[in-house]
Amino acid sequence: MPSDVLSRLAAALGARVSTAPAELEAVREDRSGWRGAHRPLAVVHAASVDEVQAVMRIAHETSTPVVVRGAGTGLAGGAIASAGCLVLDLSGLNRILEISEADELAVVEAGVLNGDLADAVAPLGLWYAPDPASRAISSIGGNIATNAGGLLCAKYGVTRESVLALAVVLADGRLLRTGHRTVKGVTGYDLTALMTGSEGTLGIIVEATVRLRPLPSGEVVTIAAAFPDDEAAAAASAAVTASRVRPAMLELMDAAGIARVAAHLGSDALAGTPLATLATGEAFLLAQTDQAGAVAEADSIVETFAAAGGRVSRSTDAASGERLVAIRRAWHGALAARGQVLIEDVAVPRSRLPEMFRAIERIGAEHRLEIPTLAHAGDGNLHPNFVFEGDPGEAPEHVWAAADAMFREAVALGGTLTGEHGVGVLKRRWLADELGDDQYDLQRGIKALFDPTGILNPGVMFAETGMPEQPRTPEEPRMPEQPRTPEENR
Amino acid sequence: MPSDVLSRLAAALGARVSTAPAELEAVREDRSGWRGAHRPLAVVHAASVDEVQAVMRIAHETSTPVVVRGAGTGLAGGAIASAGCLVLDLSGLNRILEISEADELAVVEAGVLNGDLADAVAPLGLWYAPDPASRAISSIGGNIATNAGGLLCAKYGVTRESVLALAVVLADGRLLRTGHRTVKGVTGYDLTALMTGSEGTLGIIVEATVRLRPLPSGEVVTIAAAFPDDEAAAAASAAVTASRVRPAMLELMDAAGIARVAAHLGSDALAGTPLATLATGEAFLLAQTDQAGAVAEADSIVETFAAAGGRVSRSTDAASGERLVAIRRAWHGALAARGQVLIEDVAVPRSRLPEMFRAIERIGAEHRLEIPTLAHAGDGNLHPNFVFEGDPGEAPEHVWAAADAMFREAVALGGTLTGEHGVGVLKRRWLADELGDDQYDLQRGIKALFDPTGILNPGVMFAETGMPEQPRTPEEPRMPEQPRTPEENR
Repeated sequence: MPSDVLSRLAAALGARVSTAPAELEAVREDRSGWRGAHRPLAVVHAASVDEVQAVMRIAHETSTPVVVRGAGTGLAGGAIASAGCLVLDLSGLNRILEISEADELAVVEAGVLNGDLADAVAPLGLWYAPDPASRAISSIGGNIATNAGGLLCAKYGVTRESVLALAVVLADGRLLRTGHRTVKGVTGYDLTALMTGSEGTLGIIVEATVRLRPLPSGEVVTIAAAFPDDEAAAAASAAVTASRVRPAMLELMDAAGIARVAAHLGSDALAGTPLATLATGEAFLLAQTDQAGAVAEADSIVETFAAAGGRVSRSTDAASGERLVAIRRAWHGALAARGQVLIEDVAVPRSRLPEMFRAIERIGAEHRLEIPTLAHAGDGNLHPNFVFEGDPGEAPEHVWAAADAMFREAVALGGTLTGEHGVGVLKRRWLADELGDDQYDLQRGIKALFDPTGILNPGVMFAETGMPEQPRTPEEPRMPEQPRTPEENR
Repeated sequence: MPSDVLSRLAAALGARVSTAPAELEAVREDRSGWRGAHRPLAVVHAASVDEVQAVMRIAHETSTPVVVRGAGTGLAGGAIASAGCLVLDLSGLNRILEISEADELAVVEAGVLNGDLADAVAPLGLWYAPDPASRAISSIGGNIATNAGGLLCAKYGVTRESVLALAVVLADGRLLRTGHRTVKGVTGYDLTALMTGSEGTLGIIVEATVRLRPLPSGEVVTIAAAFPDDEAAAAASAAVTASRVRPAMLELMDAAGIARVAAHLGSDALAGTPLATLATGEAFLLAQTDQAGAVAEADSIVETFAAAGGRVSRSTDAASGERLVAIRRAWHGALAARGQVLIEDVAVPRSRLPEMFRAIERIGAEHRLEIPTLAHAGDGNLHPNFVFEGDPGEAPEHVWAAADAMFREAVALGGTLTGEHGVGVLKRRWLADELGDDQYDLQRGIKALFDPTGILNPGVMFAETGMPEQPRTPEEPRMPEQPRTPEENR
């Protein structure tokens, strides 16, 4: 019974347990614009691993669902309150426990912000490479729970490549330690990798041992190029990959998005940058190279862009490079200012980027939607933004139909419906379609093994709860209850 | 009944099924020196995915254990015949199905040799980075099944980092496809990573989509250095890591091993190399740097080695560099020529290398064994070789007692009992000790989920078969039945 849960929590954790309406309300949403239908029973602000274990023991004994939440910056509804749940807030687990210069690793609690770790290790000449665009506000635990990507993945890998070991509180409160402090290690199945990207459904990541790297050395070269249209820019991006050059960053901004960004930021913001010289309909590629090979790689990229019909400029001036990257980061805010936005996250093999852009244009035309698209082009990871007019409380059916068409296209091209944001509740409808029934059932079997009573983030990733033997719900509704404009998207 | 299995196999697969005594005998061993007690019922030489599925359907219906085997180069007894089993030989699945230059990936059947893929993509300027020392003779499927390491992992990652997607035949013959052709992808749990390193116990990897990289460009610089003793060399290696330089290769050869190599190869083989100038008791470090930063990184390593008391030489001459690497590769053959060898594979955090060398020296003294040790020092991965006199059919108890002491030391230092060779049958005795009971039981639960009837490589990784509810066998014997001198170790 809820009252029993709350009294037991209060007895064990005192003021860590909150039922203040504003707090219960805040955890109904993340940064995706999705807003769940339910308030939780309580929000528990854990400040130690012991407290997380205490919460899980009580949840286990009372069969109370638990949604673990870090910084609340998710983009797929993976950490929002569900019916009758506790929201377990880990933002108080924010200590950097160790930085080992000799072993190039750090041990952090799950609530440490990505950017805070980066700031802590930079004076030592070290770097935490996983770099989601949200790094200033997102937690490392959340990054690991979603296997977060970012702008630098083709060269520096996704989050999984930087996770050496984890401490995980299991559904019944036991503490599990996976992995090692070593670069290599093959003792048993790789549960560290299995936990990475598991979206709070297998256990609660409370501590991580992460790999650090030497800070990139030398000059960063920024290359900017304008192309006649989106598909030409996509083709130029694919040509860079095919040329054997691996830039640190390769971002594509399409024409529809640039027009909105320009209108939102105003001409002063773009003045003096290559973006100010774009003609209507032109798309834009932004590349950066780093480390010892930066100049030679930049030379090659300039050549590839020019051969692909680009109008190219390059610079080694750090300030002008950072200004362009900042405009790229302002993209989602600019879109959200002009309408409701559903941000998507498909990935395709890099050679298929031109086809995917063509498909997005066709889908937009068919569904009478503008779909401005930003791509981590070096990774083949696209963020099409479904922009629509109307009430923030309702996403029209034709938006979901367009998203459905887009997911199917990405998978048909050898890609996936989510490159870095995760499945959450927003994409669970499509999970079985991509995985196939056999893999879907195995994945549900893994879920049942780690969480036999189904209390860990129910409804996330899998629409159904319980054992795989149960048939899948055929009519999972596609529409979010109350999508809202995100204040800050990435 | 065996006769039923064999007749069904013969009906389905004809001449692919062999019961020739020489073949049944050959699969009792791998390259570890371990020799199992059992011949299989048959060896099945599958040449297609369909045939693998047909074998597994028959095995499933007849509850017949199946041991999947690639090139037979394992070093932990992970692919040798067990009682009443079929050995499923995948060396005939040796086609490179696709090389995509545009997406920097290849699709290969499991039996393709690592070196053959490397040779096929090199003319295109591409490279398959996973580089176990056995690459010329080991299969990519086997590399993935063990998550193989090698000499280049600190800079270029282990096998897992290069595996994008897998096709896996499940225990009942169904075909599962995991992963994508994309750099990023977070749709569901990462079963591709879970399969990587699963040693044939969860499914049969029949096809892999692997990431390729641009071939390293520019000059390779080789740095060689002599140190007064093993521990000094280990400290110099740790100092390189701490100096923020990431060499492509950093190998340590200890004094005991060098003496044996010199005696085996003769003075002519070493003449003109820095190895020829070593005094008795001196240990040796071999580093290589590559890519655009090679020269600057080499400068830094020379300085670090010198500051650590090394007598240093450097060269950009490819032939002399390759000669040193070849001598390093001849190491195990030299050891095996002078006695029986049990090769081990612990890994420790890189800063703990000096301590681990000290511990190995102590353990050797306590157990009256010489333990020449080679280390992938850049990864903290050591291969201590337990060398003993006597009958190839028997490893003395004091050798296993010394190995036990060494495993415990590595784990106590934050390391693991196997960095790259896998658990197989040789190290299953220690698995639960390293994982702890909770993780061990979860791992066995994963095994039971994928292989509910326990027919996939029984006895490998886990000593017990069946569900986790069964108690672990307390008295798993430590001694191999008939360890033999490996003809070729790595």
